[in-house]
Amino acid sequence: MHITRTADYGVRLMTRLAMAAPGTRVTVAELARASHSTIAFTGKIMQRLVAARLVISHRGFEGGFELARSADSISLLDILTALDGTLCLNQCVPGGPGCEQAATCGTKAVWARAQDALTAVLGAESLDKLAASGAS
Amino acid sequence: MHITRTADYGVRLMTRLAMAAPGTRVTVAELARASHSTIAFTGKIMQRLVAARLVISHRGFEGGFELARSADSISLLDILTALDGTLCLNQCVPGGPGCEQAATCGTKAVWARAQDALTAVLGAESLDKLAASGAS
Repeated sequence: MHITRTADYGVRLMTRLAMAAPGTRVTVAELARASHSTIAFTGKIMQRLVAARLVISHRGFEGGFELARSADSISLLDILTALDGTLCLNQCVPGGPGCEQAATCGTKAVWARAQDALTAVLGAESLDKLAASGAS
Repeated sequence: MHITRTADYGVRLMTRLAMAAPGTRVTVAELARASHSTIAFTGKIMQRLVAARLVISHRGFEGGFELARSADSISLLDILTALDGTLCLNQCVPGGPGCEQAATCGTKAVWARAQDALTAVLGAESLDKLAASGAS
């Protein structure tokens, strides 16, 4: 049970954007350098963050990426959901595909509680706090 | 981020064993039936639970499986760890393979907190409670 490499790097990239001065656009090359990754992998992640409307992409000579909204309104959970899909510890939790044994299974309540505990921590952690911690 | 199908069924199988009368041995066929799975898949999971010393296997005419210790001393986290390995939300958390950027990365503290929240719920849920909930 772990986050994907895409989500791990996505959080670093979003944090780098949050650390940029307001109005600044950060190029994919700079993002790749800051996250110690390749331009190709960084570009793919940025495309997904743009599609999720967490990031805006500007083309052209002074192009680059910037956050689509303020860092204090973006949580770690928002980023994970954008890149790994809705967090779903097991098939039976709310948002999952469901399980035919759910009606008689006592375990589903535990999975739901575990998921609630996890999403509470991730949802409460805003990107501005991560940036202030010097995340890279 | 989700548990494996093996762990999902493993929890059901352990719960079925916890629901058996003390001293009773449950056959792989009965376990497969109770968990709505195949005998082959059930057998593989049981082998891993035996290897993790959570279950004892008895051979012969009156053979079958039983819990290796009392259900109140086995947690959901014990079962997940036996089947999915040590819970490790990201590479940088304690027990993970590590990350070369850990020294300067502010995100690792958040992953550690999220993992702590998750393991607290899973570690506090004992198998006897699951069995009392009628889990199957």
